[in-house]
Amino acid sequence: MRLIDCCSVLLLLVLFPRACQGGNILVLPIEGSHWINMDILLQALHLRGHNITIVCSSKSWYIKDSSSYYNTYTVQVERILDQELLTGMISSIIESERGNLPFVNFLHLTVGLFSTFVDIHTNVGKFVSTILDDKELMRTLKDGKFDMVLTDPCWGHGVILAKYLNLPLVYNVRWMIAGEGHFAVAPSPISYIPITGSGNTDKMTFFQRVKNTILHIITQTQHQLVTKLTYQKICDKYLGPDYDYNQLVLNADIWLMRVDFVFEFPRPTMPNVVYMGGFQCKPAQPLPEHLEEFVQSSGEHGVIIMSLGTFVSELPAEITNEIAATFAKLPQKVIWKHKGGRPATLGNNTLIVDWMPQNDLLGHPKMKLFVAHGGTNGVQEAIYHGVPVVGLPVFFDQYDNLLRLQERGVAKLLTIKTVDEDNNFLKAIQEVLNEPSYRMNMQRLSRLHRDQPMKPLDTALFWIEFVMRHKGAAHLRTESYRMPWYSYHSVDVALFLLTIALVVLLIVIGLVWSCFRLCCKSKVKSDKTVKKE
Amino acid sequence: MRLIDCCSVLLLLVLFPRACQGGNILVLPIEGSHWINMDILLQALHLRGHNITIVCSSKSWYIKDSSSYYNTYTVQVERILDQELLTGMISSIIESERGNLPFVNFLHLTVGLFSTFVDIHTNVGKFVSTILDDKELMRTLKDGKFDMVLTDPCWGHGVILAKYLNLPLVYNVRWMIAGEGHFAVAPSPISYIPITGSGNTDKMTFFQRVKNTILHIITQTQHQLVTKLTYQKICDKYLGPDYDYNQLVLNADIWLMRVDFVFEFPRPTMPNVVYMGGFQCKPAQPLPEHLEEFVQSSGEHGVIIMSLGTFVSELPAEITNEIAATFAKLPQKVIWKHKGGRPATLGNNTLIVDWMPQNDLLGHPKMKLFVAHGGTNGVQEAIYHGVPVVGLPVFFDQYDNLLRLQERGVAKLLTIKTVDEDNNFLKAIQEVLNEPSYRMNMQRLSRLHRDQPMKPLDTALFWIEFVMRHKGAAHLRTESYRMPWYSYHSVDVALFLLTIALVVLLIVIGLVWSCFRLCCKSKVKSDKTVKKE
Repeated sequence: MRLIDCCSVLLLLVLFPRACQGGNILVLPIEGSHWINMDILLQALHLRGHNITIVCSSKSWYIKDSSSYYNTYTVQVERILDQELLTGMISSIIESERGNLPFVNFLHLTVGLFSTFVDIHTNVGKFVSTILDDKELMRTLKDGKFDMVLTDPCWGHGVILAKYLNLPLVYNVRWMIAGEGHFAVAPSPISYIPITGSGNTDKMTFFQRVKNTILHIITQTQHQLVTKLTYQKICDKYLGPDYDYNQLVLNADIWLMRVDFVFEFPRPTMPNVVYMGGFQCKPAQPLPEHLEEFVQSSGEHGVIIMSLGTFVSELPAEITNEIAATFAKLPQKVIWKHKGGRPATLGNNTLIVDWMPQNDLLGHPKMKLFVAHGGTNGVQEAIYHGVPVVGLPVFFDQYDNLLRLQERGVAKLLTIKTVDEDNNFLKAIQEVLNEPSYRMNMQRLSRLHRDQPMKPLDTALFWIEFVMRHKGAAHLRTESYRMPWYSYHSVDVALFLLTIALVVLLIVIGLVWSCFRLCCKSKVKSDKTVKKE
Repeated sequence: MRLIDCCSVLLLLVLFPRACQGGNILVLPIEGSHWINMDILLQALHLRGHNITIVCSSKSWYIKDSSSYYNTYTVQVERILDQELLTGMISSIIESERGNLPFVNFLHLTVGLFSTFVDIHTNVGKFVSTILDDKELMRTLKDGKFDMVLTDPCWGHGVILAKYLNLPLVYNVRWMIAGEGHFAVAPSPISYIPITGSGNTDKMTFFQRVKNTILHIITQTQHQLVTKLTYQKICDKYLGPDYDYNQLVLNADIWLMRVDFVFEFPRPTMPNVVYMGGFQCKPAQPLPEHLEEFVQSSGEHGVIIMSLGTFVSELPAEITNEIAATFAKLPQKVIWKHKGGRPATLGNNTLIVDWMPQNDLLGHPKMKLFVAHGGTNGVQEAIYHGVPVVGLPVFFDQYDNLLRLQERGVAKLLTIKTVDEDNNFLKAIQEVLNEPSYRMNMQRLSRLHRDQPMKPLDTALFWIEFVMRHKGAAHLRTESYRMPWYSYHSVDVALFLLTIALVVLLIVIGLVWSCFRLCCKSKVKSDKTVKKE
């Protein structure tokens, strides 16, 4: 452990010794890459002496029934989110991107995506119903003397359970049911805050703003629809008729947001939003011997790594062949996390692996370039280690994540559609390798990201423990969301003041008109008098 | 120095050693209590090894020409802000509050206040013109190799000079030219954010919201008017025609806000707003011997202190007599910072002083109650030390500051108008002393306030040094303020989409109408054919 880490731990222990008494945390995690994030927090909380209890479904992908740092209550469910379904959907998205799907199939895919989306939340709804109906489990949870609930509000089970158990609530969050987390909690002028999927940045043309607005309306409608169809029904049944699910969501004490403003475009925020972007990043550890040997063999040219994340099982053969052929032309050594068959065009300089120590490779001095799909974890690790990126996004937020890097001059973006045309892949790699601004800008971002009063993970731990120490953080939360929309936006006040102004105007016009008529009358009268005379 | 302080300093030095190289900071402070705040920051910056240069006016109240921790350039001006004028105005406000001013005089006072307000900013405008016209001084400043400008944007000279010298800009801020700082930088829904002077909290009735809206319009008009009359002209003359003063204000890198959310109502904020509320607070030091003796003589009853700040030179005799008589009835000992003559009703338990070590007294274990006027410094010190308050506000933000404490159940508010009626003062003191909730709530606030990842002063220093290290903090600042208002609020997009919707609707109606007519026609035709047959 380095001096700097020792100091940090020492200060945390001196300043916040109460934390070491150990809190009792109930965790309602969600699946997929969201669990990978949550797991990092849980390990750190365990190290700080806290007791962790997880309620998860029997269809969980990664959460183990027994672990050295958490207890689990596994609830039997039929289905939540099928890994095969997701992988299949991603393949369809790639096909659609490549233009290999006829229009009817494309429509079918779109409808399929939305119905899968509703289906997942319906399943989560059944999951939380099963928990609430399980009297023994609920008695155990009530008697568990938990200090707080930690959840990811992308699914609604944690929010409902926290209210049912009347416990303080902390989010590990970036996405809500539909849309980015900030849109739920902070004022979000859509004139400069891009909607995920819009492909916009924070500087938009008029028509980009039109697109942004339409997408915002769609996202919000989708959110309201899914909420009404699933979670609101459960609130009505288990909490009573006075609880609005969307208000419960806003009742959280702290939102630990998985971004920071080195990565995300600056935008309005709230006092109970805490930024922990890059909390998963850590200094590189030594590589396994065979990898270190391979990396060192690259000489002065250095190393490129490529990974398209967990869910992209197989790219179309023409793309993998193009990628392999491109790599073969480079003087660098390449480590490629690749799941499909061995491409025919693979060069001697390319090592194909099932898994790689991505963080340790990115932090290696020989690292030159990261070919990434744009998942949040990889993007944050690239920023942390200052490695420029060639981006090949596949689905969801990946394009938008990479766009943020491209906007800052630290990445070059490609699309699945055209990556294998006109040497696009080779040109992008050469541009990022040979144009020094990419590396310099990324290293500037890295310096900015690392220059924080506390490390992001320590910040997250501090605020989780804060909520336990003070039984919430109500003083940081506005209660404005309890207002009806017309009051929140002062529509009623505006109408009232306009009415008053109108009445005053009418009275003034009336008075002036009366005076005018009076003057006319008296003039006519005096004229008549003059005539009579 | 306690272990905790040692650790804090050690961590600051280990984590941010570059700061110790010493930056070069140009400071444009403002007068009155604002300087007291700024001075605390400057002393801390000096201790961290930074070079501080102040440009101040020859009519400065407190800023000394020579100091051990800053250099000064004094610029000759005729007038900026007369201390006597301000003291006189406060007396008039008290008279007005007491209802001793006839209506004509009250109107005169209101107009006088506004013209004084314009006058001060006109003088500040002349001050910055004098600086910019002083070629030698400007050459010195340009050659000074400053890393940044630190200013309080309540006056506009620092903003303009920072732009002229093209330097990063940090604010020590709570107030702008008119209104509270947040209103300039962050979205501020006036439906739940009270305007200073409205007497509203963050929960308003319909008519309170109407009042809030009207006051917001007045404040914003006042701001625009003063800006146009003074600072915009200087921008046009010295910076060129393309610079809008209000945009320059928003160009600051960091806003060090002199509040926190233990004190202020929660509200939207921005990534470049840093909260340093309570940065002036520190642990109590031992009292001077005679004061310690007086305090100890209070026995189990403890001590009350009373201070109405720097500017209230004299309260009306009937009030001071009532205050003195009330104190005489109490079993506590009282220390009263009082400038006028000795009240006839003064009891033996009351010590009148010219000055007192307020922070050390508030932190004394015998301290029971603070009778305060509601200045930000005093209020923050009361929160820091957990001492409940009886509030007697006089002018400006004092009522609103105390209202925030009253809303949290830690203070009882009185008014100058009725403080000497119906034993109001005695009742308020007895309520706060005897009702344990006041002390318990205030000690809860104190715990919340002290429970931060870093001390507020260290946070402020960190961000000042951050700006010097990275030559600004542009990544934390939205550039949305460069958009025209109709784009920012998406008015153009809304009109465009409504037009499209209207056109589509008209086309659909037209088509339906055409079909209908076509059907009718063919029916008439077929009827005719039938008839013919």
